[in-house]
Amino acid sequence: MKITRDLYQGSLTLLTDYYQFTMAYAYWKSGKAEQEAVFSLYFRKNPFQSGFTVAAGLDYVIDYCRNFSFQEPDLRYLLEMRNPDGSPSFETAFIDYLREMEFRCDIDAVEEGEVVFPNMPLVRVKGPLIQCQLLETPLLNLINFQTLIATKAARIVLAAKGDPVLEFGLRRAQGIDGALAASRAAYIGGCSSTSNVMAGKLFGIPVAGTHAHSWIMSFETELEAFEAYAESFPDNTVLLVDTYDTLNGVRNAIQVAEKLKANGKSLKGIRIDSGDLAYFSNKAREMLEKAGLNAVKIVASNDLDEHIITSLKLQEASIDVWGVGTKLVTAYDQPALGAVYKMSAMKDSKGDWQPKIKVSQQSIKINVPGFHNVKRFTLNGKAIGDMIYLEDTASKETVTIIDPIDPTRRKRIQTDQVEAKVLLVPIFRKGQKVYHRPDLHAVRQNTFDRLAQFDKTHKRLTNPHIYPVGLEETLYEVRTNLVLKTKPTEIAD
Amino acid sequence: MKITRDLYQGSLTLLTDYYQFTMAYAYWKSGKAEQEAVFSLYFRKNPFQSGFTVAAGLDYVIDYCRNFSFQEPDLRYLLEMRNPDGSPSFETAFIDYLREMEFRCDIDAVEEGEVVFPNMPLVRVKGPLIQCQLLETPLLNLINFQTLIATKAARIVLAAKGDPVLEFGLRRAQGIDGALAASRAAYIGGCSSTSNVMAGKLFGIPVAGTHAHSWIMSFETELEAFEAYAESFPDNTVLLVDTYDTLNGVRNAIQVAEKLKANGKSLKGIRIDSGDLAYFSNKAREMLEKAGLNAVKIVASNDLDEHIITSLKLQEASIDVWGVGTKLVTAYDQPALGAVYKMSAMKDSKGDWQPKIKVSQQSIKINVPGFHNVKRFTLNGKAIGDMIYLEDTASKETVTIIDPIDPTRRKRIQTDQVEAKVLLVPIFRKGQKVYHRPDLHAVRQNTFDRLAQFDKTHKRLTNPHIYPVGLEETLYEVRTNLVLKTKPTEIAD
Repeated sequence: MKITRDLYQGSLTLLTDYYQFTMAYAYWKSGKAEQEAVFSLYFRKNPFQSGFTVAAGLDYVIDYCRNFSFQEPDLRYLLEMRNPDGSPSFETAFIDYLREMEFRCDIDAVEEGEVVFPNMPLVRVKGPLIQCQLLETPLLNLINFQTLIATKAARIVLAAKGDPVLEFGLRRAQGIDGALAASRAAYIGGCSSTSNVMAGKLFGIPVAGTHAHSWIMSFETELEAFEAYAESFPDNTVLLVDTYDTLNGVRNAIQVAEKLKANGKSLKGIRIDSGDLAYFSNKAREMLEKAGLNAVKIVASNDLDEHIITSLKLQEASIDVWGVGTKLVTAYDQPALGAVYKMSAMKDSKGDWQPKIKVSQQSIKINVPGFHNVKRFTLNGKAIGDMIYLEDTASKETVTIIDPIDPTRRKRIQTDQVEAKVLLVPIFRKGQKVYHRPDLHAVRQNTFDRLAQFDKTHKRLTNPHIYPVGLEETLYEVRTNLVLKTKPTEIAD
Repeated sequence: MKITRDLYQGSLTLLTDYYQFTMAYAYWKSGKAEQEAVFSLYFRKNPFQSGFTVAAGLDYVIDYCRNFSFQEPDLRYLLEMRNPDGSPSFETAFIDYLREMEFRCDIDAVEEGEVVFPNMPLVRVKGPLIQCQLLETPLLNLINFQTLIATKAARIVLAAKGDPVLEFGLRRAQGIDGALAASRAAYIGGCSSTSNVMAGKLFGIPVAGTHAHSWIMSFETELEAFEAYAESFPDNTVLLVDTYDTLNGVRNAIQVAEKLKANGKSLKGIRIDSGDLAYFSNKAREMLEKAGLNAVKIVASNDLDEHIITSLKLQEASIDVWGVGTKLVTAYDQPALGAVYKMSAMKDSKGDWQPKIKVSQQSIKINVPGFHNVKRFTLNGKAIGDMIYLEDTASKETVTIIDPIDPTRRKRIQTDQVEAKVLLVPIFRKGQKVYHRPDLHAVRQNTFDRLAQFDKTHKRLTNPHIYPVGLEETLYEVRTNLVLKTKPTEIAD
């Protein structure tokens, strides 16, 4: 799929922060533009107090990078930019340099649908410093949002325990692409369908939907409205019963079901969109069963999320299908992931990689240095720990992984007794795509398969057991030494 | 501006919920498709516990409606849709009907930058039932998000009390358009600039930015990095001082300032992006003053919102410019507005408008019926109350406005002693645009001007004084009678 190219005319190369251009210009002026660097995109905390995160957005990143080039209108805009004193912000020679720029980075990334954790790289970019830098903002925008929504969806799907979850957040989503990308990510996370017809067309996601209250209100009576709808969709009749009075709506739906039956058809479902969902779904189920309509599905919606679904399940609500909108597509309880993109190494004049670190008063904000990757260890198909390591470290029989925030949390792994898988996969080499993108249905299946590798305690919706992710010892040492070298030993006064 | 057209290739007509199409089809089958209806877009609660809301997004709505038509690939997609049993969802004759469809609605709306309140119409659509229905989802998507962000921005700008507020949320925004539309809405709400270069190019918003930690990390020392940056931007040097140690960073910045001074230039600012902003900004200010650098601005950022800015102001932090990202562009504390779009009237077979209502167990969910509009009363330039009224009600000397949720809240207004302004402005007539769009800078000024009409107690960030908005008496009666007629008098059991 070529989403960004199909969806957005022209170039998205200007979809970046202005400071990327001021730095690009200053790198160019200082002769550093082509110096090789490595940047790592990672997040510091699972969202929603989750025990895991589901990666998504790589497909958009691939489109972005494949179309990375400056078009004449972009260059004209940059050329016309001015400093506060009216002088041009950029020299013409720099604009000419941008015009000739060809994408030349190596990119490695975890695949979409992969289960990921704090501090591990989701995307690693190696290339000319100037290109790595310009990519920072768009990569963060694309990965942050879709990863957030895929994770939220996966949590909601877990709460629904096998029931279908329908995504219908378009009306409350954050903008056009906030909706389209959310529908895509929600499907990756395990949703069964979307209400967004354009997302259906663009991504091949199944679409679903019935009717709104306005359908009912356009008729004199609810019964009349139900009958007319059933006539239009005799093979797919799902009726919204709560426009005026929910239980009366169920009674009317039962009447329509009997008419359908007389014609060899059947009522497929009813939908409840307001009120006490536990109470009304159970009452409705009772009434449907009394009428011999045991196969009729009850669809529920109204500000649902993983916690309300869990609560409704505990109350034994008679709900078969869950419609989820606002809380899913905006990731309502935490609407931003907060992933960052940090330089982790630069090649020095001798061609050796120098690890780089950004220290901070807040230790959670210190990055992982060096040219690093991540390995997942599994034992009998179960994930037991992830190791972030420097790529040039020789493999050992026994490794110890050390939590970067709490170094007393350590885990020792006998590497010859477990399976190991490198999570960063080559996506681009010297600017050329080398990765074959799976289709979206395969990505969705990927999510289910990868999540199945994790113990259920890590997937608990509240207070999950923390999955062990740590730095390999050599990397831990490199990092600690760099921090000590850089950080003032005294508390700032 | 033709944003949606410039930004998105082809048609956005499928950017709607699938149930709009199932209803459209069923309206068509039932012979109701061309029956005239009125729908009203409104919200039920100000976001962020705010005392007001700032309308935005109309410009996108205009683009959407002007491009409303079905393209062949859209029609093909719809034609290929299937019911669960494999039968086509829609007849070919319906697809042909869509192919010929021309946008024919009348749309009235409040202008962008207008101050609005719960229950009043922001957009009113009158036209063939089928067209009103198809527009529901895209209109909600476009208005909900931009109104939310414009309101958040207005609150942040109020908290900054005249200091410039820079928006730089792109990296954490919800998708590509979640960023672009947010930059636009943030500017409408009063922000001074964006970091998003593409938003700058598309909308003409001023862009701003300096450099990141990676700039510093690409040099051996911070001082070297500062000097190189100042060489590239001698007329616009703003230095990020917290890569390694904030106060040491300030010391280095002062060194660079002295070098700039020697060349007849000056350091414009420093930026602090982490740690205790009150403490570090005051320390930095002290150091800068000691060095005679009183004109150097201090820019602060790091998860700021209106509450943290207020707190920093109370602590007398020495901050001149506020950089706001995630919390603004995702409306972090309430990431969805929740506006709805409800049928309020339909023409009967005699050509008379019949008011329509959707009742609910939750009284806040009951809509305002009829063909209604909204008037703002002002006295000496100060807004004193808004009246929602039926357009065919004769004007009176004294009106009483009645709060729809709490009917004991009433306000009597002598209409001959105040100014009155109708807030819904004609945008489309019979599908043709009749509205002249102001440019974005004028819209931003509009926000400041309209907000100035309101007493400061309504603009208080927490526990604001509730501005009076009510139904005119006739409308209140129509609504009450409709509710009583429709609602069961007993509590559901």
